[in-house]
Amino acid sequence: MKVRLVKNILEVNDRIARENRMIFDQNGIFVINMMSAPGAGKTTLLEKTINALKDRISIGVIEGDIATTRDAEKIEATGVPVVQINTGSACHLDGNMIRGIMDDLPLSEIELLIIENVGNLVCPAEFNVGENAKVMLLSATEGDDKPLKYPLMFSEASLLLINKIDLLPYTNFDTAKVKKDSHSINPNLEILELSAKTGKGMEQWCNWLEQKLVPLGYIAGKTL
Amino acid sequence: MKVRLVKNILEVNDRIARENRMIFDQNGIFVINMMSAPGAGKTTLLEKTINALKDRISIGVIEGDIATTRDAEKIEATGVPVVQINTGSACHLDGNMIRGIMDDLPLSEIELLIIENVGNLVCPAEFNVGENAKVMLLSATEGDDKPLKYPLMFSEASLLLINKIDLLPYTNFDTAKVKKDSHSINPNLEILELSAKTGKGMEQWCNWLEQKLVPLGYIAGKTL
Repeated sequence: MKVRLVKNILEVNDRIARENRMIFDQNGIFVINMMSAPGAGKTTLLEKTINALKDRISIGVIEGDIATTRDAEKIEATGVPVVQINTGSACHLDGNMIRGIMDDLPLSEIELLIIENVGNLVCPAEFNVGENAKVMLLSATEGDDKPLKYPLMFSEASLLLINKIDLLPYTNFDTAKVKKDSHSINPNLEILELSAKTGKGMEQWCNWLEQKLVPLGYIAGKTL
Repeated sequence: MKVRLVKNILEVNDRIARENRMIFDQNGIFVINMMSAPGAGKTTLLEKTINALKDRISIGVIEGDIATTRDAEKIEATGVPVVQINTGSACHLDGNMIRGIMDDLPLSEIELLIIENVGNLVCPAEFNVGENAKVMLLSATEGDDKPLKYPLMFSEASLLLINKIDLLPYTNFDTAKVKKDSHSINPNLEILELSAKTGKGMEQWCNWLEQKLVPLGYIAGKTL
């Protein structure tokens, strides 16, 4: 019974996520689903990323949280359009939640939509929301055992960002081990190291994002 | 429909958790449900706690993880009985999972049972497992916005342990803000600060545990 129920929920979600993706495609939007444990630094990274790219790329943001609008307020201060989803008790975003607020965003003006998922290393990885790529953050202070302990998110992600590398000297985090274990789960996973706080490594991450948009011709201005 | 389903699941779980609690009570066991985000330091704290107390208190451990037996292996090295539950995809332990492995522990010999939940700041707080007290960890590197963003766990916990205080100098974590926000959610929440790594604050935490067992007469040897 239980397995069947979960499967049905995921099947329905996948259908809605595919429809979301069609709507994003029609509007020429590249969509990132950004996931991590609580406190890995998603919002700070997002603020810095927006400030680095907003003059060249038209960005929109969806903020997912259990409660509060604090993260959305921080993003709003950067000047890009942002919509907050408060999930109440749900520990992840799903396709239907994204569908429900799509009309609140100026879709025809956005080239890059970043969806910041609820801070959780487990469930968000199970629910597609219509994204082109899943990007996950792992902070150096969380420990180097995470890939093997939470394999699904590492297997679903296209890119792993190892964040808070400014704190590496004060931890026993073994970056080589994380890379090895991550690649044993997902050989295609790209991995970048950065500190959103100090800015180190931000350029490579911004380049990664821009390269995803180049094939769509977005960098030269929205053509759709 | 969805609300009804969740409610039913939680009702069934609460019934099983109450039965678990009866079994623990009959065996004279004080049970801690230990919860936190991934990487907050639960397992390291547990190792240090066991080594500090095992000569005076008979301890048992249940380790909850999505995958791997790494944490259970670390606990096993301390010499106390430990059972691993691998949840597969479930992002929390529930009453039924605990029931299923109870017979694998020497219940009649254990005075303090510590259940290390799956690393997740959301769902574990919703599912009682039969514990006497919920203890949550928040690491100083996770950020001071967590009480308001993840209120349920803070409202369910009896004790909040602020861990990794050795890293405070390298963060902008505002301990006073965390205490204030936590108490706005749960005025009765006890809060202790420690570093499992350096040992600072461990004595207060161990005292807290011992004081919970005193009324049951455990410290003088198991009497049931």
